[in-house]
Amino acid sequence: MKGIADVARLAGVSKSTASRALTGTGYVSDETRLRVATAARSVGYVPSASAVSLASGRTSTVGVIMPGVTGWFFAEVLEGIQESLLEAGLDLALYDARVGTRGRDRIFDDFLARQRFDGLIAVGIDPEDRELERIYALNRPVVSIASGGFPDDIAIDDVDVARRATEHLIGLGHHHILFLGGGDGGRWSHVERHRFEGYQATMDAAGARAEHAQCGESLPAGYAAAADLLSDLRTRPTGIVAVSDEVAIGAIIAARRLGIGVPHDLSVIGVDDHEYAEMFSLTTLAQDPRAQGALAVEVLLERLADPDAPVPVVAPQARLIVRNSTAAPAG
Amino acid sequence: MKGIADVARLAGVSKSTASRALTGTGYVSDETRLRVATAARSVGYVPSASAVSLASGRTSTVGVIMPGVTGWFFAEVLEGIQESLLEAGLDLALYDARVGTRGRDRIFDDFLARQRFDGLIAVGIDPEDRELERIYALNRPVVSIASGGFPDDIAIDDVDVARRATEHLIGLGHHHILFLGGGDGGRWSHVERHRFEGYQATMDAAGARAEHAQCGESLPAGYAAAADLLSDLRTRPTGIVAVSDEVAIGAIIAARRLGIGVPHDLSVIGVDDHEYAEMFSLTTLAQDPRAQGALAVEVLLERLADPDAPVPVVAPQARLIVRNSTAAPAG
Repeated sequence: MKGIADVARLAGVSKSTASRALTGTGYVSDETRLRVATAARSVGYVPSASAVSLASGRTSTVGVIMPGVTGWFFAEVLEGIQESLLEAGLDLALYDARVGTRGRDRIFDDFLARQRFDGLIAVGIDPEDRELERIYALNRPVVSIASGGFPDDIAIDDVDVARRATEHLIGLGHHHILFLGGGDGGRWSHVERHRFEGYQATMDAAGARAEHAQCGESLPAGYAAAADLLSDLRTRPTGIVAVSDEVAIGAIIAARRLGIGVPHDLSVIGVDDHEYAEMFSLTTLAQDPRAQGALAVEVLLERLADPDAPVPVVAPQARLIVRNSTAAPAG
Repeated sequence: MKGIADVARLAGVSKSTASRALTGTGYVSDETRLRVATAARSVGYVPSASAVSLASGRTSTVGVIMPGVTGWFFAEVLEGIQESLLEAGLDLALYDARVGTRGRDRIFDDFLARQRFDGLIAVGIDPEDRELERIYALNRPVVSIASGGFPDDIAIDDVDVARRATEHLIGLGHHHILFLGGGDGGRWSHVERHRFEGYQATMDAAGARAEHAQCGESLPAGYAAAADLLSDLRTRPTGIVAVSDEVAIGAIIAARRLGIGVPHDLSVIGVDDHEYAEMFSLTTLAQDPRAQGALAVEVLLERLADPDAPVPVVAPQARLIVRNSTAAPAG
């Protein structure tokens, strides 16, 4: 069987460069990595992951912890992360930490402590204090996306997007605008909380009354909550700022079922630019979670290369996309 | 620092049992594992994953390969797998192998060969011959879900569910029934192909003409394809057998936009029991992908414990749920 020396010779690089390229830690140029990988394949060399790990002190794996993968945002972020990790030759260990499950406790109590990863990406986990302590106790680089509790969190400015969404409706002439989302089962994620605050401050500044309807973070939850609040003609708002596109689309489906015209009788604006947004002509503040996943990997790789170097995180921007779910109020 | 001997003593088990319990390979009783884990926590013992892996020849990790995580079926399967792996103390390494991407090639050419897992679960990957060869060359237990090409695949009987869906519409009095799904960009997954065959055979047996409209595997794709085929009143079918609930729901949304009443003017039946199915009153053949993920882990753990023992796979059953998207044709 051929060894690393054969690979290095064929690729025309040093043994240590070949080793770095093959362990996939990503600190060699793409061109070199490709040359070494090609050489390794042509001599039939496959490094043993366990041996690599012990020798280098690295697992060549990045842990990703997120509360489930069924929401659009999380699935998109995960695909963005995976794509970049594949590119860098790194494995992805997934930890699905849904709030309030025994699995989440086991992840924080047992799984993380095994340190089967070089670094961790936390996505939308809204950690409790003791969970945050567990993560910091690992003493590994951590990058977070929309997670709350971490410095340098990669996220759009949630207060600001809700402000812009609310101002869009106010600019069209709406006064009776309701915020749909958050507070489901008495619980607010920090994203929901920030978006509500942005809405509330904007309503206050405009001298309009803030109004909230609680709602879970899914399309069916938006449907159910909206079906409820829209059925009473006397209290029905003319505009809805939804916490997310999934909730907004649920509200549009509910409105249509009730014979309420969107945007004629009701304007709805969301946040995300979900893959269904165009289908429902939804006006929204667009973000790109796939790019946020890629950015998290990039920042993590830089921190792995030099834990002490400051890595400035450029905050992702949201972009207003005006479609046909918002218009001036009727009459 | 306390060692494995301290843990074993405190838990009242042998060192080898404590080791097995802590490496999380799952061949000890739940009660013992809990006792050992509690003992380990109380003495502050955390095994080094790399050392464990080299010593036991095991990684305590299960690889999961699937074409993306954004579809409902894949996200649900992944959560079912994750939940069971957490329960068994095993890590999950995710390989996102979307068809036609460079990432997919890298996974099959480089990532799998590193063998950073004890066994592999393949979900819906429809492997090409050379991909299948790569997987078998690993010489590790593999369990597949809805994947095609593998023996003992865990899946509902796709030919049969389409037969039952078609018979449901025929039984209501429909003759002009179209199959929506598959063939997008000239490509058929084996699931799409089998469902179309079940539909076609049932139409043939009923003396009715089979009719197909190609469509990608997503809700927006179902919407776009249905908007197209439903806009011509002369050729419009009275019933649609959709390849999946996502496609069926897209078709219902398109019908509503066109003012076509469901089920009065058009009956639509799907396969899945997607989380939106109830919201759209969708009649469907229900399956439980989360349970399929859990079953795959169970089978894999048995094969890891004894690679030669036959593990009979009990095929998951689909269940007809009649809601309000299907009815006798008008007139």
